[in-house]
Amino acid sequence: MNTTMEIVCVGNELLIGKTLNTNAHWMAKRVTSLGIRVKRITVVGDEIDEIANAIREALQRKPRFIITTGGLGPTFDDKTLEGIAKALNCKLKINEEALTMVKEKYEAYAKAGRMEKVELTPHRVKMAKIPEATHPLPNPVGTAPGVMIKVKGTFLIALPGVPSEMEAIFDKSVVPLLKKEAGETIFFETSIYADEIMESTLAPLIDQTMRNNPYIYIKSHPKGEEKKPHIEIHFSTTAKESKTAKDRLGKAIIQLSELIEKKGGRVKLKKQ
Amino acid sequence: MNTTMEIVCVGNELLIGKTLNTNAHWMAKRVTSLGIRVKRITVVGDEIDEIANAIREALQRKPRFIITTGGLGPTFDDKTLEGIAKALNCKLKINEEALTMVKEKYEAYAKAGRMEKVELTPHRVKMAKIPEATHPLPNPVGTAPGVMIKVKGTFLIALPGVPSEMEAIFDKSVVPLLKKEAGETIFFETSIYADEIMESTLAPLIDQTMRNNPYIYIKSHPKGEEKKPHIEIHFSTTAKESKTAKDRLGKAIIQLSELIEKKGGRVKLKKQ
Repeated sequence: MNTTMEIVCVGNELLIGKTLNTNAHWMAKRVTSLGIRVKRITVVGDEIDEIANAIREALQRKPRFIITTGGLGPTFDDKTLEGIAKALNCKLKINEEALTMVKEKYEAYAKAGRMEKVELTPHRVKMAKIPEATHPLPNPVGTAPGVMIKVKGTFLIALPGVPSEMEAIFDKSVVPLLKKEAGETIFFETSIYADEIMESTLAPLIDQTMRNNPYIYIKSHPKGEEKKPHIEIHFSTTAKESKTAKDRLGKAIIQLSELIEKKGGRVKLKKQ
Repeated sequence: MNTTMEIVCVGNELLIGKTLNTNAHWMAKRVTSLGIRVKRITVVGDEIDEIANAIREALQRKPRFIITTGGLGPTFDDKTLEGIAKALNCKLKINEEALTMVKEKYEAYAKAGRMEKVELTPHRVKMAKIPEATHPLPNPVGTAPGVMIKVKGTFLIALPGVPSEMEAIFDKSVVPLLKKEAGETIFFETSIYADEIMESTLAPLIDQTMRNNPYIYIKSHPKGEEKKPHIEIHFSTTAKESKTAKDRLGKAIIQLSELIEKKGGRVKLKKQ
């Protein structure tokens, strides 16, 4: 897990609490399972300077990947590419490859009867105006292409905010690159559940189990209350081989379960 | 909406995509409705330096409020207060008021029959070790107190990650302060839904409506696909008076609806 990523989500709807940030959650889960470590998630509004600052700051921390979501569409407040251009000190330019992608989409929509004729209005052309030196990533389900550029040691990738479009471009164009970069280390995780033990009583048992199992990370997530405890205990590790990981996880789970039961707690292997 | 806030969420579970960040969503919605503008949400892992950096960077942007969620509990990886202490260049110290809060909680748990005797183990005392010069905020439903400190012009507030505890401390100790600081401007919002118009066709109509309604912000959220469009159109404004806001929103909705219908789209006032 030495390959790192930052996720930058753009959209006022996330900052006013209108939209739950399922994109960051989906992306974090997917890239973690591919063996990449997400170090930070940043959410900013639809303002060029806010976006540019978030990108600049992320670049300074030198993750291997920065993925942005949102702000690639045809409306006035889709400003992610302007923000990226500002951060990189370059210009937005109509990209012929991107323009062909956009044009072909509208020709297909016209054929399907959604438009009388294909008109490349300024709002449609906008989606093909991308920062110089970036290249477009085809959008299998929507219109606005994604964008990718390598800035020194960092791949900077911009994806749309509509989940189906973001996921489709990610799967098609980003996953192959992530797999190549991630190396062979994969993330493994599992949870057990403990009742009738307080988190503050559990805490030293977790410490002890982690000391005995140096490759295992254990985190408790209280689901009940301290006075009526129900705690999810999440175990994770990274390894090259699935068998190594499972053996390690199994050993740690047995050790911690025994400690919990000695303290009067009850352990369940499944959510109930 | 001149009073600004940043939210900093701490927790590896958010970065590995195990947990959906409903805390940030809940908080953003609540503070926006109180007339405060959330400018940025940052998610970092359970590492002192990561937390300290995020706090330092947020302080440099001088929001009126920084609220952190997560990392206040009894386990080894609850590191938010260590991160804050590092960012503020101060020490963690047992706070007598916080220790009394923690002690009283365990006495109550003991009374309720959850423990034989009240033992203030190091993991329990940990929850009362807070940065010097901060003061504890009582936790009405859990054990770990919240923490508040004023750093120059910024109120820095740390809340737990368990949603019921975070929300209870927020409602009891944070809302009164936010109300005092927010001034009189409140955020108003509503949505309409448009079918049979593509987002790229809608875009110039939104531009036109926003030009005619300078206090209204309009954002389109495509829910279908560009070729079979179903778009939520979100209108928002800030005003001192509810009537002013409603009049403005109504006027903008009527204007945009007429423009959409002229282009062959269909407008619905409710989600379907």
